[in-house]
Amino acid sequence: MIPDGILRELTEQNAAKIVLLVADGLGGVPHEGRTELEAADIPCLNKLASESECGLTDPVARGITPGSGPSHLALFGYDPLQYEIGRGVLEALGVGLSMTARDVAARANFATLDKGFIVDRRAGRPATEKSRELCALLSKAIPRIGDVEVIIEPGKEHRFTVLFRGDGLDGRVEDADPQKDAHPPVLAKPLAPEAERTADIVNDFIRLATEVLEGCHPANTVLVRGFAKYPAIPSMTERFKLHPACIATYPMYRGLAKLVGMKVLEPRETIEDEFNTLSREFEKHDFFYLHIKKTDSYGEDGNFDKKVEIIEELDRHVPTLLALEPDVIVVTGDHSTPAVLKGHSWHPCPFLLWSKYCRSDGAERFTERECARGSLGRFPAVEAMALMLANAQKMKKFGA
Amino acid sequence: MIPDGILRELTEQNAAKIVLLVADGLGGVPHEGRTELEAADIPCLNKLASESECGLTDPVARGITPGSGPSHLALFGYDPLQYEIGRGVLEALGVGLSMTARDVAARANFATLDKGFIVDRRAGRPATEKSRELCALLSKAIPRIGDVEVIIEPGKEHRFTVLFRGDGLDGRVEDADPQKDAHPPVLAKPLAPEAERTADIVNDFIRLATEVLEGCHPANTVLVRGFAKYPAIPSMTERFKLHPACIATYPMYRGLAKLVGMKVLEPRETIEDEFNTLSREFEKHDFFYLHIKKTDSYGEDGNFDKKVEIIEELDRHVPTLLALEPDVIVVTGDHSTPAVLKGHSWHPCPFLLWSKYCRSDGAERFTERECARGSLGRFPAVEAMALMLANAQKMKKFGA
Repeated sequence: MIPDGILRELTEQNAAKIVLLVADGLGGVPHEGRTELEAADIPCLNKLASESECGLTDPVARGITPGSGPSHLALFGYDPLQYEIGRGVLEALGVGLSMTARDVAARANFATLDKGFIVDRRAGRPATEKSRELCALLSKAIPRIGDVEVIIEPGKEHRFTVLFRGDGLDGRVEDADPQKDAHPPVLAKPLAPEAERTADIVNDFIRLATEVLEGCHPANTVLVRGFAKYPAIPSMTERFKLHPACIATYPMYRGLAKLVGMKVLEPRETIEDEFNTLSREFEKHDFFYLHIKKTDSYGEDGNFDKKVEIIEELDRHVPTLLALEPDVIVVTGDHSTPAVLKGHSWHPCPFLLWSKYCRSDGAERFTERECARGSLGRFPAVEAMALMLANAQKMKKFGA
Repeated sequence: MIPDGILRELTEQNAAKIVLLVADGLGGVPHEGRTELEAADIPCLNKLASESECGLTDPVARGITPGSGPSHLALFGYDPLQYEIGRGVLEALGVGLSMTARDVAARANFATLDKGFIVDRRAGRPATEKSRELCALLSKAIPRIGDVEVIIEPGKEHRFTVLFRGDGLDGRVEDADPQKDAHPPVLAKPLAPEAERTADIVNDFIRLATEVLEGCHPANTVLVRGFAKYPAIPSMTERFKLHPACIATYPMYRGLAKLVGMKVLEPRETIEDEFNTLSREFEKHDFFYLHIKKTDSYGEDGNFDKKVEIIEELDRHVPTLLALEPDVIVVTGDHSTPAVLKGHSWHPCPFLLWSKYCRSDGAERFTERECARGSLGRFPAVEAMALMLANAQKMKKFGA
């Protein structure tokens, strides 16, 4: 991989437009002999593939099943082994919390405390509605601790997210969670001297929350874990001289895009909305990340046929993309989510890159197996950014 | 990539002969559906490809368009991100100056100084002949500064190259060039304490040159930039136990070969001369780098048909090469120079390796798209050296 300093020196701004179309969890494994892509009727993507350079990407490394954070960072050109996004931050982005560089985020649970022991780490899984009320109670009672703002966002059932916002906070704090039932509560412990004050504030929060929740049995205390500071990541503008925009319907992906400095556009809900947003905003940016969520959701559900349908729905919008005449088009997944595995997997992602200057491989279809024969070979997803920039002629020559 | 120390330990000398045939800028992109290689009638290369292992190389990394320096270093087995060749050095090699380890090289311009301002950085682009006279004037007037020898070689129009030869010189000097017109002259500034003396000598040179050129308006001063010390690079003999020779008609490539310790042979001008030199000298060396320049030149000109013709001319000399019965043959480019792009590009290079011990892929032709399907896959060009050495049985076993 090309060192960051060299990449920064080589990139230059121009008017060319790049569209990175990410169908989340696109890659599959065969079910009755065919992957989801192989089963799908996708004439537009097949034609595009035939005019493109194809390959297979490893989001992090061969054999590694990535989460959404690292797999997206890689596609955005950020080495996922170098730039880590803590659990709490991903959680906060996922529920749509807007974070600042001063924030430490954490995941939290309502739990049951009985005679000095945590007897149920999930407080009997309260209904989401009930949990929402409890979060409102906490928010009202604990708006801040000293000069640190406390921001609470409810999640599903017993889960919620908490942000601590203030100067000098540090995410290096050990989980305040016994991890299993029938143990006494565990205090937050600093993992570095700089995180002592943060651990104190977290422990104050747990104490105050337990006071507020007295009488709310079984949800009468909280566990807090996955502490993470909002990472300082150089923006895509800084690194690649791009002015990027994000079109995504799910909060986490919008949050990831914001993390690398993308402008987050506002589509409504459907894939059609997303492509309409692309068309409407196309003049305003030089890099678009368009994210399709449901390929992954149906993969996670193990719903092969529905995943196929979403891929076919995506295919019907490809002409809208082509009509905009972008200079570079990439279609890929952030990782594989094979329906037969009902979850993210380690399989490499099908990848196509089209530009006026590509040497098309003449693939017959856009499938994992055709991509495996492509001229891009099998490569780390983080290297895709240099390819996109090169094809958009946004990179100067290296050396004389 | 295999670490340098291990590579050194594994290599051993034997009588086997390797020929690395580099057609500069060989790779193309399709023009009316075919690349230059696809359009060319090259029966000998096609036959050789059918008996070879094929692949595609990235000279530096995916998406990176390399200059000639890094792309050649990679083929010679030197990591182009580790071994950098400064601008001034490449320029000096390009004009045929013979450099030593004591030299700092720089590119220079004649320029126009008026009332304390640089009003024309190119001195009205003097004719090359005029510039040659001015260089002779400078050479005569400033043969040395203190104990540092000054060597001047004219280039085209306003350009020339200057070498400072002496002990303790350092290339870390900032350009003595305002970069744009209507600015006062800029002094050379040391970028490291060790370069202070070098900067002083450069500034003395500029002052003396301006005195010599008084009355030569518009070429009445000089700008000097791209300072670079001749890099200390371990030779191919040291690293690979080879006794390599270079057959190239253009100075820069002969200079690059000399940099890694090749003996530079003396062909005259044509491709035929080059192959004759190969035949004549074949007994004397165990590694030959034979460089064809005009594939690149016509690519840079955007002359698709002429580039095709050069490839066909090269093909007609392949039997001469085969008649010598080398043990290993590689045919590749240092980078792509597609005629449709009129310049170097990021596209990977077609690569074939023939030896008695290769596992031929049965490629039908020697083209980018056939190479994309080859068993060597897509790989960094710097890894080609180990393949050549292995096929020549010049590498011992690694580990027990």
